[in-house]
Amino acid sequence: MKRKICVVGIGPGSAEEMTLRAARALEAADVIAGYGVYNELVRPLYPDKEYIETPMRREADRCRMAIDAAVSGKTVALISSGDAGVYGMAGLMLEMTEGMEDIEVEVVPGVTAALSGGALLGAPLGHDFAVISLSDALTPWEDIEKRLRLCAQAGLCMAIYNPASHRRPDYLARACDILLETLPGGTACGAAAHIARDGETARVMTLRQLRDFPADMFTTVFVGNANTRVIGGRLVTPRGYKSKETRE
Amino acid sequence: MKRKICVVGIGPGSAEEMTLRAARALEAADVIAGYGVYNELVRPLYPDKEYIETPMRREADRCRMAIDAAVSGKTVALISSGDAGVYGMAGLMLEMTEGMEDIEVEVVPGVTAALSGGALLGAPLGHDFAVISLSDALTPWEDIEKRLRLCAQAGLCMAIYNPASHRRPDYLARACDILLETLPGGTACGAAAHIARDGETARVMTLRQLRDFPADMFTTVFVGNANTRVIGGRLVTPRGYKSKETRE
Repeated sequence: MKRKICVVGIGPGSAEEMTLRAARALEAADVIAGYGVYNELVRPLYPDKEYIETPMRREADRCRMAIDAAVSGKTVALISSGDAGVYGMAGLMLEMTEGMEDIEVEVVPGVTAALSGGALLGAPLGHDFAVISLSDALTPWEDIEKRLRLCAQAGLCMAIYNPASHRRPDYLARACDILLETLPGGTACGAAAHIARDGETARVMTLRQLRDFPADMFTTVFVGNANTRVIGGRLVTPRGYKSKETRE
Repeated sequence: MKRKICVVGIGPGSAEEMTLRAARALEAADVIAGYGVYNELVRPLYPDKEYIETPMRREADRCRMAIDAAVSGKTVALISSGDAGVYGMAGLMLEMTEGMEDIEVEVVPGVTAALSGGALLGAPLGHDFAVISLSDALTPWEDIEKRLRLCAQAGLCMAIYNPASHRRPDYLARACDILLETLPGGTACGAAAHIARDGETARVMTLRQLRDFPADMFTTVFVGNANTRVIGGRLVTPRGYKSKETRE
């Protein structure tokens, strides 16, 4: 019999930012597997489920436990905060079930922090943009540096994930120093933290100020392009409609 | 009295891919303003609302009519497909209400096609990625070319929006030719069309095949990085967990 594992993006944190499809996948599950912080976000909504939990950096163990539960006949939802695919668990689960003909993996998308944090700040990603993680746990720092440098040269807006952690307190400053090689210090930037959770904050600032901003692992950082500006306290990257209309 | 306009990302198309927050914003609205195709997606769910509609390229008119409705005392939801901020209406509405002290603009995020199309294909955006539109209606083609070239050099995965239209039948081929200067022809790619709507399709292919793929304006295209591979027919960009584990 074919077993199904749903990898579900639960959005930024609150029940109302979840899609109906994600909510239905959790409702239908016998077992919910996730990182502790994310399990605690959904547990109040689905208190009667069985929960599987492993710490950060034990993602492969988490997948293995989810697969075992599915093989034993249980319906499993493996959750990621934000989207299931953007630095989420969908790819790893697809890798780990490779060749298992009797397991079907369904990926349920969700609102990733680039979108939820962007909405909170205004519309910083209104034109072409890049999403880059500063975590070098799984990516060489040289690759991250190169990406930041080329994206700045390309004039892309950026959403920067994992800007800092206890182990990497200075990574955001290092990243900003690279961006400042190309972008003016006055470039409009922003930071959103604890999006859709207790303690939610949004701050608009310049790239120079961002360099020394005390971001943590719950912060998502936004870097504007040359046209990004602050309108009534909101960070806005125009797509060009208004300026085009003026020209015509 | 303060008037509120919600700019709402309705997701890819089906009601179940909408967030609960987006559904509540539409439910609370007297007036729903949007492009015709998107209005028709939500009208069956909210048949009793007043609808404001303008054609494509009349986005500023649409905003103006939405603002007029809000000023007249109505609760207004301005909708974008996907996310409200990613090539959506949030930025334009924030620009057009600049200085209007009695209008508050709330941005409600949604699942953009990079995420919904990615989930349909597997997990192509599992590592750093860029979102680039090939529409040169509001952006010089030279800028688009430069972004494609630099993103390929940066090793970013890509989600490409607006890959073609009646007016621009050869733009995807032109874009692929630029990418092929840097990336191997065998790079794993994909295309998703009519996501979460009637006629939904997902296709996995190589970059060389993508060059001649008949994309249209309802297609979102995905380009992998050097590690992206096809697993059981799904497009997967590993983040590195599995390979890391093997190394340890």
